[in-house]
Amino acid sequence: MRLVSIDIDGIERPGAVLHGPDGVDRVLDLGAGTPSATLVQLLADDAALATARAAIDRADPVTLPRLADLRLAPPVRPLTILCLGYNYGGHIEGHTEGLVEGDQGEEAPPYPNVFIKTANTIGGPHDPVVMPPAATDVDYEGEIAVVIGRTARNVAEADALAHVAGYTLFNDVSDRGWQDRSSQWALGKSVDGFGPLGPWIVTADEVPSLAGRQMEVELNGVVTVRASTDAMVYGVAFLVHYLSQIITLQPGDIISTGTPARSVQAQSAHRPLADGDTVTIRVTGLGELTTTFVR
Amino acid sequence: MRLVSIDIDGIERPGAVLHGPDGVDRVLDLGAGTPSATLVQLLADDAALATARAAIDRADPVTLPRLADLRLAPPVRPLTILCLGYNYGGHIEGHTEGLVEGDQGEEAPPYPNVFIKTANTIGGPHDPVVMPPAATDVDYEGEIAVVIGRTARNVAEADALAHVAGYTLFNDVSDRGWQDRSSQWALGKSVDGFGPLGPWIVTADEVPSLAGRQMEVELNGVVTVRASTDAMVYGVAFLVHYLSQIITLQPGDIISTGTPARSVQAQSAHRPLADGDTVTIRVTGLGELTTTFVR
Repeated sequence: MRLVSIDIDGIERPGAVLHGPDGVDRVLDLGAGTPSATLVQLLADDAALATARAAIDRADPVTLPRLADLRLAPPVRPLTILCLGYNYGGHIEGHTEGLVEGDQGEEAPPYPNVFIKTANTIGGPHDPVVMPPAATDVDYEGEIAVVIGRTARNVAEADALAHVAGYTLFNDVSDRGWQDRSSQWALGKSVDGFGPLGPWIVTADEVPSLAGRQMEVELNGVVTVRASTDAMVYGVAFLVHYLSQIITLQPGDIISTGTPARSVQAQSAHRPLADGDTVTIRVTGLGELTTTFVR
Repeated sequence: MRLVSIDIDGIERPGAVLHGPDGVDRVLDLGAGTPSATLVQLLADDAALATARAAIDRADPVTLPRLADLRLAPPVRPLTILCLGYNYGGHIEGHTEGLVEGDQGEEAPPYPNVFIKTANTIGGPHDPVVMPPAATDVDYEGEIAVVIGRTARNVAEADALAHVAGYTLFNDVSDRGWQDRSSQWALGKSVDGFGPLGPWIVTADEVPSLAGRQMEVELNGVVTVRASTDAMVYGVAFLVHYLSQIITLQPGDIISTGTPARSVQAQSAHRPLADGDTVTIRVTGLGELTTTFVR
């Protein structure tokens, strides 16, 4: 299933995206019978998921509203957002994570390099990123985010995927100026709205593995990143296991799996994001997330 | 006022601590008329604060339950926890923040070194810190935490203190092993329960400045840190201003102002915390917070 959070006048309801025989994506409102349920509550509830599947099977897509006519909220609103640095082959340890082009032969870091973004960063798939006056060196990153569905505490690697609800796309927007002011990247990563998430969660049953997927990131329509998920250093099951040894992961929490390096051409043309720039992240089978940056 | 969050069978209600004529601290339940209000809601509401003050003035402390007989929750449950590294003179930039003894002549860092703890770290003043098997190098730090009362977004330094509800104590517990695994300290700082907070919030009207206060931290009754808040590098008004340029601070969010260096003797006797250790943080006018560490 592709599950979304529909924003109806500020109330968020879960929905499923159905691809109609007319080739148009349409949305089935899954909150109709249970108006208080959010998508994260649905993801954590086997019976509700089964009911949702049955409703999808019964639905006639052509009668449903078009996805393009709805406003989407972030699919989840995580309390905890854990992000990976240097998690694709090709990165080297530079002073600015995500900016430095590396050798494919670079050794993997001995442990995952994990940083935190605060909850104020999360934005919906239709929200622009508003760059505040203090952020003058704004940069984008395209990532696959793991969405936790079941509470994960000290889980073995072999059991870890049972705690994953699904996958979505995440733009780990950063202000490199604030990021580089001190040893800890925290502030450069945690600017209000610097975490567009979505557009939907592809449920884990449809993603047995992230392997073999193509990721592309475009800036204003020009591809700047093209990579295979096969270059990912630490995989999903290991990360859930590793992190759950010390942090109880809750439904709706996300682990963002890191960004691949940019092409040499893109890196040499690099400049801070400016008013009106758009960034699109596209991953095989997971959809695409386009964000506009404004001042 | 000294304000607490009382835990009554899992329901948290705001309360005020009154020092009775018999020398005993007692607690006035401020949630009696408004059972849904939490302490953070009270802190953000001028009218409710005035009502609370009037109720305190009318109360006869001797008739109230003793503080020692109540269970306290964390005074607030922050969504965002921002912590300062190297924010007292005497620290030098070492590979392990908070562990390295420095020269008093050390230059201040050019910008505040800010890191994040996740929300799962917050513990109440009576909660033990349960060290999970994976955390084998656990360490304590004693800090003063600023509690935000009014939403702060892009506030000038001159206006910043109007957004502060008050002050409490915070033990920035860390696992140095996880902290040192990579460049980012995030995981070593974010273990479940590694952030005891409390016991109360001293409201800002009673704390015109943090200057001139003595901080002591004891491990098993032996003083290991003794410092004056005058050695603080970046002060409260600047920090609220600085952070609010990029992060909208919400009521209940905390900014922890950093830990002073340990005494040379304490540092030379340093070992990881073990089952049964207790740590007390004590600051003039702000009270004391004692935490037991267990395996």
